[in-house]
Amino acid sequence: MHIVLVQVVVRHELLEEFARALLVNAQQSMAHDAGCVRFDVGQEPDDPTRWVLYEVYESPDDHRRHRESPHFRAYDEVAARAVTEKRVTTYVGRQITGPSPEG
Amino acid sequence: MHIVLVQVVVRHELLEEFARALLVNAQQSMAHDAGCVRFDVGQEPDDPTRWVLYEVYESPDDHRRHRESPHFRAYDEVAARAVTEKRVTTYVGRQITGPSPEG
Repeated sequence: MHIVLVQVVVRHELLEEFARALLVNAQQSMAHDAGCVRFDVGQEPDDPTRWVLYEVYESPDDHRRHRESPHFRAYDEVAARAVTEKRVTTYVGRQITGPSPEG
Repeated sequence: MHIVLVQVVVRHELLEEFARALLVNAQQSMAHDAGCVRFDVGQEPDDPTRWVLYEVYESPDDHRRHRESPHFRAYDEVAARAVTEKRVTTYVGRQITGPSPEG
């Protein structure tokens, strides 16, 4: 399994637009992207401009294909305006919890 | 939902002991800790000393109770020796994927 961890800081004035675009992207990725096992989203309680995206794919290729999807591109257009800092780390999954949506 | 993200750097010479202790802790937490919805573990492919723990609890109290468990304490004893850098961030879950192990 291939983990993609994205930590971002978002412009305060674009928070609502960013949240909407990100949550649609997360839901669409889980619904439609082959090999997308998990797409969780979190927001720091003490600083609502700080978000995390926790994505798990069956392979790095599945992540590459996700980035070609229309829902990723729609999100990325908003993120290009809204995100001021971004840190991406990838990991090999050593334990991934529970069933994948594909069983 | 309450997300706890832990990013650590581990002493090279204690990697095997750390991995063993962490994976047991992750599995036992999923099996026994009330409100522990997810405990994923990842390791950076290009730097095996860098790990991530992605934990999701139903509430911050469930996370506090997890830290009182014998499996957490056993892991923490190893981590105290093995971990040289640690960054913990907590998030409010805005999207948590899929079914929890409790349905």
